[in-house]
Amino acid sequence: MIKASIIGASGYVGVELIRLLLRHPEVEIVSIISSSSNQLSIDKTNPQFKKVSNLVFEEFKIEAIQEADVVFCALPHGISQEYVKIGYDIGKVVIDLSADFRYKDLQRYAKDYSQHKYPELLSKSAYGLCEINREEIKNAQIIGNPGCYPTSAILGLAPLLKNKLVDKNSIIIDSKSGVSGAGKKFDFAYSFCELDENFKAYSVTKHRHTSEIEEKCSFLFGEDLNLSFTPHLLPVKRGILSTIYANLIKKIDKNDLVEIYNEFYKDEYFIRIFEDELPELKYVRGTNFVDIGFEVDKKTNRVIIISCIDNLIKGAAGQAIQNMNIKFSLDEKMGLIMVGEYF
Amino acid sequence: MIKASIIGASGYVGVELIRLLLRHPEVEIVSIISSSSNQLSIDKTNPQFKKVSNLVFEEFKIEAIQEADVVFCALPHGISQEYVKIGYDIGKVVIDLSADFRYKDLQRYAKDYSQHKYPELLSKSAYGLCEINREEIKNAQIIGNPGCYPTSAILGLAPLLKNKLVDKNSIIIDSKSGVSGAGKKFDFAYSFCELDENFKAYSVTKHRHTSEIEEKCSFLFGEDLNLSFTPHLLPVKRGILSTIYANLIKKIDKNDLVEIYNEFYKDEYFIRIFEDELPELKYVRGTNFVDIGFEVDKKTNRVIIISCIDNLIKGAAGQAIQNMNIKFSLDEKMGLIMVGEYF
Amino acid sequence: MIKASIIGASGYVGVELIRLLLRHPEVEIVSIISSSSNQLSIDKTNPQFKKVSNLVFEEFKIEAIQEADVVFCALPHGISQEYVKIGYDIGKVVIDLSADFRYKDLQRYAKDYSQHKYPELLSKSAYGLCEINREEIKNAQIIGNPGCYPTSAILGLAPLLKNKLVDKNSIIIDSKSGVSGAGKKFDFAYSFCELDENFKAYSVTKHRHTSEIEEKCSFLFGEDLNLSFTPHLLPVKRGILSTIYANLIKKIDKNDLVEIYNEFYKDEYFIRIFEDELPELKYVRGTNFVDIGFEVDKKTNRVIIISCIDNLIKGAAGQAIQNMNIKFSLDEKMGLIMVGEYF
Amino acid sequence: MIKASIIGASGYVGVELIRLLLRHPEVEIVSIISSSSNQLSIDKTNPQFKKVSNLVFEEFKIEAIQEADVVFCALPHGISQEYVKIGYDIGKVVIDLSADFRYKDLQRYAKDYSQHKYPELLSKSAYGLCEINREEIKNAQIIGNPGCYPTSAILGLAPLLKNKLVDKNSIIIDSKSGVSGAGKKFDFAYSFCELDENFKAYSVTKHRHTSEIEEKCSFLFGEDLNLSFTPHLLPVKRGILSTIYANLIKKIDKNDLVEIYNEFYKDEYFIRIFEDELPELKYVRGTNFVDIGFEVDKKTNRVIIISCIDNLIKGAAGQAIQNMNIKFSLDEKMGLIMVGEYF
Repeated sequence: MIKASIIGASGYVGVELIRLLLRHPEVEIVSIISSSSNQLSIDKTNPQFKKVSNLVFEEFKIEAIQEADVVFCALPHGISQEYVKIGYDIGKVVIDLSADFRYKDLQRYAKDYSQHKYPELLSKSAYGLCEINREEIKNAQIIGNPGCYPTSAILGLAPLLKNKLVDKNSIIIDSKSGVSGAGKKFDFAYSFCELDENFKAYSVTKHRHTSEIEEKCSFLFGEDLNLSFTPHLLPVKRGILSTIYANLIKKIDKNDLVEIYNEFYKDEYFIRIFEDELPELKYVRGTNFVDIGFEVDKKTNRVIIISCIDNLIKGAAGQAIQNMNIKFSLDEKMGLIMVGEYF
Repeated sequence: MIKASIIGASGYVGVELIRLLLRHPEVEIVSIISSSSNQLSIDKTNPQFKKVSNLVFEEFKIEAIQEADVVFCALPHGISQEYVKIGYDIGKVVIDLSADFRYKDLQRYAKDYSQHKYPELLSKSAYGLCEINREEIKNAQIIGNPGCYPTSAILGLAPLLKNKLVDKNSIIIDSKSGVSGAGKKFDFAYSFCELDENFKAYSVTKHRHTSEIEEKCSFLFGEDLNLSFTPHLLPVKRGILSTIYANLIKKIDKNDLVEIYNEFYKDEYFIRIFEDELPELKYVRGTNFVDIGFEVDKKTNRVIIISCIDNLIKGAAGQAIQNMNIKFSLDEKMGLIMVGEYF
Repeated sequence: MIKASIIGASGYVGVELIRLLLRHPEVEIVSIISSSSNQLSIDKTNPQFKKVSNLVFEEFKIEAIQEADVVFCALPHGISQEYVKIGYDIGKVVIDLSADFRYKDLQRYAKDYSQHKYPELLSKSAYGLCEINREEIKNAQIIGNPGCYPTSAILGLAPLLKNKLVDKNSIIIDSKSGVSGAGKKFDFAYSFCELDENFKAYSVTKHRHTSEIEEKCSFLFGEDLNLSFTPHLLPVKRGILSTIYANLIKKIDKNDLVEIYNEFYKDEYFIRIFEDELPELKYVRGTNFVDIGFEVDKKTNRVIIISCIDNLIKGAAGQAIQNMNIKFSLDEKMGLIMVGEYF
Repeated sequence: MIKASIIGASGYVGVELIRLLLRHPEVEIVSIISSSSNQLSIDKTNPQFKKVSNLVFEEFKIEAIQEADVVFCALPHGISQEYVKIGYDIGKVVIDLSADFRYKDLQRYAKDYSQHKYPELLSKSAYGLCEINREEIKNAQIIGNPGCYPTSAILGLAPLLKNKLVDKNSIIIDSKSGVSGAGKKFDFAYSFCELDENFKAYSVTKHRHTSEIEEKCSFLFGEDLNLSFTPHLLPVKRGILSTIYANLIKKIDKNDLVEIYNEFYKDEYFIRIFEDELPELKYVRGTNFVDIGFEVDKKTNRVIIISCIDNLIKGAAGQAIQNMNIKFSLDEKMGLIMVGEYF
């Protein structure tokens, strides 16, 4: 059994990690750490856990993670790196769900977040986008779990980028996310009356996930590229659907794309290529799947890609567990085979 | 491994049965039967199953269920009894999710549904409300899985009825259900624009579940009783919350009730008694739990009980599997331990 | 033109008052008062007003209401009475939307809210339930606008109470409200992820509107009565549907009730009696109507009444304007004739 | 008073027309025509109209529109042109809400819809996008009311196209619509359980509104252009938000754009330019406004435009009335000044 600790365990992502780890056959949770819920039992703070778990939140102390094989950090960026450092120093595998270990380029990170305090740790870390970076993940002690938007966008684009099939300056990612992506917010803007029956774009041209997507897409393409990314807020709780546009640099039809995507992802359980119809949010809800479909607009020779994930699972807790499975040489699917609740 | 067939497998309840049985460690699905989806693979008709199952729907033939140990019938009442009879005659355990095997009193059934064609089979059947009727279930070849509203109402009332603590003529059940309770409807009244941001009562004084609830509550109380039941339609997909009112026949406070309910359900994993706060729909969503809480209104000496279930799980597919577990002497919780997705 | 000031103008009810008063042909808004939005223009704080109004919020000063004929107070109880007193003292008609002027019995108010500071003003005030209390409203300088739940409950029950047709100890009011009823809340419990697809009861046996409903129902019945009131939170933005139960003291059928209600409300434009079908939330959304329907449960001789309102209009801002129309001898419907948006 | 008839009056758009015309001070509705609701009173079929209107639906006969000055046709394309022809032939002003009179190019229409039966009538018709085509509308006897998506897209792009500021081959329109845009559908795909908490793209590269948008944008730009248009289905009832991308052909910053848009729309009441923040669906719900905001992505020199409308009002019934106002030389805003209900 792998022993796991979760720091920042009472937020939406932390609780989702607990929910998923409880059903993992090879994991034992040894501590759940949250200063705000310190001493409270999870079946009190989150009654959905009644009869299933009575784990008790505790404050962070080094002893709380001493027993763990793997430490999950579900903390805000900036703060997270402090705990990653502590875990790293005592030899733990650390899977960080903040932005702190997602970048190779410190300047990109500094520009969009803040000065990194432990740049030396970055070289020990891998970007945890499992399908793209599996080998690096196996060898790293720190894994920077990707952002939710970047997961949907990069996996949707990877086969095209790797095969250099698109004009690198033409990429537009129009993403729509459920509200849980904002985390457990005590903010009027996230209140029911402000969001139900509403829809809006936000942080247009300014969202921090843009630089993460650009860095990784540039690696895949082999050249630096810039792209446009526009996030929107859907009146749903879970899920991201990204509609991605790119100009094809040669005539390719939909059948060619099906073949290219099927080949690129042929060994990937969690990638589902939709050949006939298009993916919808409800098919991935509650799962670790990435559903990808596409059309070619012949008039403009543009490809339109639809890429869907559950932001809390493949976009956060599920991918973190997939990374753990990779790192600890378990079956990558373990604990993560789920059919969406659909409704 | 227990071999299972599902007849009527393409409706909302049928698909939920498939989803849940796929994660049951001791069950193998041998056939999924649906005339409307005949020959189609479930990952085509319901893309949420992609990569998890490629079971193919088939038309009903006796051979299709020959191999099964247990047959689940998720068909409309009236039609269902025909298939139950066939399954019964060839010696299968049959778990029927229609109303056809829920009643002891044929006249109640005839009045609210239609003349029963196989009354002799009723004596071979048990009402599948697991927590109340476990011994009978073990010994029956046919199990009539309870209605969704009755499950929430009867389990909420049972400790009071059994202990004769309430005025038998004072019971009022005000229930609110998610839309999936209506099944897979091709009906304008269930369209998004007609239901979203809406709320309504329906079938007031006329809903068929009333007689089912009355029959079972009368058994528990030991005398015939009449009650009022009012269903409402919530703009949510899953879940039933019943608010139940009854006049107490002696002074009892909330602490007494907590004790009575805890004692009554002390061995029941799926019943969760809320002592401090009150249950909410989101805590049971996606689970087989029944969450029960209550308050005593001292001025009127009335008890108010809140009882929540997921209508598709404890109210249908989950309870059917719980019945199967009972009947086949498996751990009753097998395949049914779940923390709700919450959001 | 009647000149109106609104104190507490930036909350949900205040903004709704502004929206409705702007379309009233005989009203001119002379000041909108809000300390939190002081100096801001409403088309900045609430962009839905762009191009329609650029009224500017100001802080409270006596001069700000000096010009007004009528002052609406949309402030929290306790605080509100201070401003009502000021308005009263300088001779303004004051319509108060808090609980401060709803009670005749100071002890009820003190028990559920706090000690009233200006009991002498209560005798100058009328309870502003227009259809029941029109004459008193005409003669009062202060009008205590009813609570949203009480409006739906009392108007649903009035014909039965006035005609003494029900057992006074048998009344149960099971109400379901949209989220805007909680006001403009900066509270995690009202965030989208906590409420969407959820449903819950709250303040069971303890909600403060119980005593308001009891006082007014007792007046109508002519004897003191106690009742049970259970509020629930619907995942919709606007609207209250109350399902009301009472034991009839003689055999009455639905047709009799239709006649009684039609007679009782024969001159009331805003009351719509549903004879055939039942009211639904969507029919009243965005209007000042009260939709009432009913069934008689013959087995138990119980009446079940469905009463629907828009909590922000008939339950708050609309009824306040209706009170103003009454007080200033305008056509009671003026500015309030609306067909619901439906969707 | 202008006398109006509505053909196809029982669909979502027809009912919205009735709702809005009832509040228009210079309009009298003389007939509402619907074969499916023939002889029924609108307060029976649509109870939200109780106490406000008891207009009775009738079957189409020439006499039913004889008295009208203006005939609104809210029928499916293909069928609609038959009724437009009848109305035209007896000299009525006809405002058609189908696609039948939106195109100048008959081949575009034929390709996406069907062969037009009355091409000679097209030359008598004007495209009813009020802000762009006011003069033509004044002089036409037939007005082809624009599609909902085209209204949001074209008005969002017009200032850029007219000023030739964008690369004509770079335009991408990513639109998200509420469900009422699909009309009153009796289709399983539009049922609550299939759409709530879901989100999807549909008709990607194939939606018929593409050719309407292209034709009108080409006129504005002065050259033929092709663009990509992707519609999506939001789990809300009303509203369209279009996110529009285009490459700028010279360096322009956001302030320049504000100036260009303010200048272009300086006399347009229904266009609201958002200079600081971005528009959201909730600000336009229930109104005839078009809310437009934008950002410039400096890295890619791309403009991102957000354009919001209420699909049933500015996208259908409201714009039809605005066209009527123009045609009959009324104040263009008459009957259409509304603040959105917001929630």
